[in-house]
Formats: sequence, C-alpha cells, structure tokens
Amino acid sequence: MRLVRFDAGRWGILEGESIQETDGPAGNPTGRRFDLGGVTLLAPATPSKIVCVGRNYLDHIREMGHDFGGDLPKEPGLFLKGPNALAHPANPARPYQSGDVVPYPSFTRLLHYEGELAVVVGRRMRGVPEEEALDYVLGYTCALDVTARDVQKTDLQWVRAKSADKFCPLGPWLVTALDPQNTTLRTYVNGELRQEAHTSLMIFPVARVLSYISSFMTLEPGDVVLTGTPEGVGELKPGDHVEVAVEGIGDLHVRIGS
Amino acid sequence: MRLVRFDAGRWGILEGESIQETDGPAGNPTGRRFDLGGVTLLAPATPSKIVCVGRNYLDHIREMGHDFGGDLPKEPGLFLKGPNALAHPANPARPYQSGDVVPYPSFTRLLHYEGELAVVVGRRMRGVPEEEALDYVLGYTCALDVTARDVQKTDLQWVRAKSADKFCPLGPWLVTALDPQNTTLRTYVNGELRQEAHTSLMIFPVARVLSYISSFMTLEPGDVVLTGTPEGVGELKPGDHVEVAVEGIGDLHVRIGS
Repeated sequence: MRLVRFDAGRWGILEGESIQETDGPAGNPTGRRFDLGGVTLLAPATPSKIVCVGRNYLDHIREMGHDFGGDLPKEPGLFLKGPNALAHPANPARPYQSGDVVPYPSFTRLLHYEGELAVVVGRRMRGVPEEEALDYVLGYTCALDVTARDVQKTDLQWVRAKSADKFCPLGPWLVTALDPQNTTLRTYVNGELRQEAHTSLMIFPVARVLSYISSFMTLEPGDVVLTGTPEGVGELKPGDHVEVAVEGIGDLHVRIGS
Repeated sequence: MRLVRFDAGRWGILEGESIQETDGPAGNPTGRRFDLGGVTLLAPATPSKIVCVGRNYLDHIREMGHDFGGDLPKEPGLFLKGPNALAHPANPARPYQSGDVVPYPSFTRLLHYEGELAVVVGRRMRGVPEEEALDYVLGYTCALDVTARDVQKTDLQWVRAKSADKFCPLGPWLVTALDPQNTTLRTYVNGELRQEAHTSLMIFPVARVLSYISSFMTLEPGDVVLTGTPEGVGELKPGDHVEVAVEGIGDLHVRIGS
C-alpha cells in the first residue's frame, strides 16, 4: 500500500494515479478521491524528531576516511535533525516544477548529497526488542540527507551541517509492505548514477536500529529514522537535480537552489 | 508575569499561589482558577526541537579541558535534544514528592548535571537580527541538561549522551520579564551549591544565540533553547536531588532515579 500526504495535510492511499483520501495515515476512507497529478505532495510524516544513522555502510565509512582498523562499530552511531529540516517532495508527474527547493545556504561552500532509505514509525516504541521492531513501522520512503560537509568538520556537533532548514527532503510517499534489507538504493545527480547499494549491506539492519534507539529514546508515531548512506557521496552545485530511488518505493526528486 | 503549564496541558498565569487559567500560553483568561499546590506542573513548553549551546561559559570550557589556546569560539557551538528528553518539574510545594524522576540509564556509568538558563520561543523566528531577537521570546525558565559524560566521549554524536528520555527537566514556569544577561544561575545537589554564575559571563548572549540559530534553522513557537552551563559540572548518583535556581525565575527541583 502506498500512503501519500498532500495539500493541506490530507492523507490518502495511492491507487495507480488516483488517491483515495483517508482520515489519517493508513486511516479510514473519507469517500473523496483526488488525481495524483493535481495535488501538492507533502513529506509523508509529521515527526517529533528525525533520528539518523551516521555510519551504516562499510564502503561509505571507508570513503570518509574512517577505517576502524577493521573493527566495525558495535552500536549504531546516531545524530538528530529537527523537523525544520523536512522538505516536501516533488510530484513525480512534475519533477522539475514541484516540491520544495533546497537552498544552498551561504554558510557552506561544500554541500553534499547522501541518499538514504527512511522509515516512518507508526506506533510508540519504547524498549522494543529487535524481533518485534518492524511491526511498529508505518512505512518506508526515500530521503536525501543534505549535508554541509565543511561545517560538519568544524562545528561542535552536526547541527548546521545536517539540520538547516530543508536539509531532509522526504518522499514521495510511504510504502507499507517492503523488506527493508532486500531492496536497492540509488542516487542520481542530474541524471547520472552516483550511489548504488543493496540494503542487505547495512551494518545494522533497520530492526536493530529501531530497537537500539527505542532502548533510550521513545519513538513517537510519525517519527522518522534515516538508515544511513552508502558510498558515492559527493558535491552538489546550485541548480542540481537529485533523485533518490529505492526499488519498490519510487523516486524522490529534489531541486537544489542557489 | 509567570506562565505555568499544568495538569492535562492547561496554561495559566501564576499570581501568588493561585493560577488564573488562560486559553494558551500568555492567552486570554478562561475564568477558572486553580491552587498552585493542587496541580501537576508540566514542562512549560511543547517544543518541536530543543537547541542547546555547548560551550557558552569560558570557565566551563576550561574545566572540560578545551582551552582554544586563548581563542574563544567565533560562533555558538550547538547540539540538539529531541522532545522525548523533556521532563516535568516538581511542584515547589512538594519538591520531593512530585515531578518526573530522571532515570539513571543502564548505558551510562557517569551521569552529570549541567544547570542552565532556558529560553522558550513565542513567535516563529527566521533570519531575525540580534537586536530584535528578544522580542520573539515567550519567557525564561530553568533547565537541567542531564548528560551521560562517558558515552558523550565515545558515541558518534551526542544523542544518547544528551537526548535520552527525560534528559531535559524544564521549569517550574516561564517568567516573561527578565534580563537574561543580568541574573544569577545556581545548581545545588542534595542542597550543596555546585554551580554559581552570573549570566553576563555568557560568551554569546541570548539574543546572539537566537539570532544565530534563526539564520539557518527556523525556530517555532514553543521551541526551547538552552543557553549553556557554567563551571562546576559533576557527577550524579542514583537518588540525588538537584535544584537549578535562576534569580527572578524560581527553582527547578529534579529527582534522579535508580
């Protein structure tokens, strides 16, 4: 099932090119229908927090120059983005004319893309064991973890680097039935393939990440978890068009401003 | 004016020991009155994010072993806590029998207190100049920035260390008229004075901190900003009673669990 959030905060189920409106995420039908092409898509979550895994693909850890001397991290390394970082996805019917434009902020000279698989929580999670964690997921979607690589290295923590306004485009919709460890993530910049990885390569699978977070930090319905980026990260230029594509979900189109 | 949040999310104005209920923070009177001693106080904010200054008092920077070779930081160093970190204050009428108990989590062996002056935002702030920043403040209160000092040093970022559940006790109420650079902050553990600093010693005054954050991160009404801790931080033991007292505001009492 594909769940869309659109217009002034409506939710619906996407069936082909038609949206059946519901009274909440995965809620009951209201009887109203909308054409996908005619609506404004919104980021498919209203999180109280966005929790991100910093190093979850070995090849990305290596490309960032962190070798660990062969030892993998024993626990997921996390960072936070605030809800201010959310950006709305383009409508796939008009990928170059819709969706939020991510500004290229004046505080950075080195903006990077990091394509990721994102998880949206459906029910409150506190101390949930790994075996049950996926039962709490509302759905999966695509995310672009926009990163100001220069200030990431110089600031005390990764707040400006990761949580500036619109640094977390999310969408275009949620897919409820997906095996999060058996799909392929790809990132394109101006149509050119830059990242490609099977999600079985994650060091910490999604269930482990959710269980770990919930062991000390209660996850609320609507909270978003970004599961890490594979190798191939790189620079963005003003005006670039980024596409994060997860097989079984769809394509998140993002325009970079000036 | 003292603004209290209480019971099931009601707001009111505290007049002596009596609360005049209002229809929102600094809202219109509803006509109902409550006795302070009879209500359950809540953290006086419902933030979308909690933004914290990491190093804002020179003496604390030095005690943590960061000398800067005499150079002060040029911009505030920030980190985030999620709303899950909020904890409700004790009612000053029953400081040892009310308010949330902050758990001593099993993942840490070194829990620290950091007493701070906190600011709650009243109106949306985006790109607000320093001269106007204080006009956007709803009020000031006390905060305890609970910190797991051991994992702060070993984790990728300060998520477990700073944003575990209930790691941000806040309260007991907001004071709307306060000069944030002309008051004194004190922290007591089991009645013993551990931190004492005049807020004129902040490296970055509150107006500068708010303006800086709003230059890249939109602040929403209800968002909380913690303005940093002075020297004197130290260890907490299970069962400790912490008091953060800011002159002109009042006392935030916090019990540490086991």
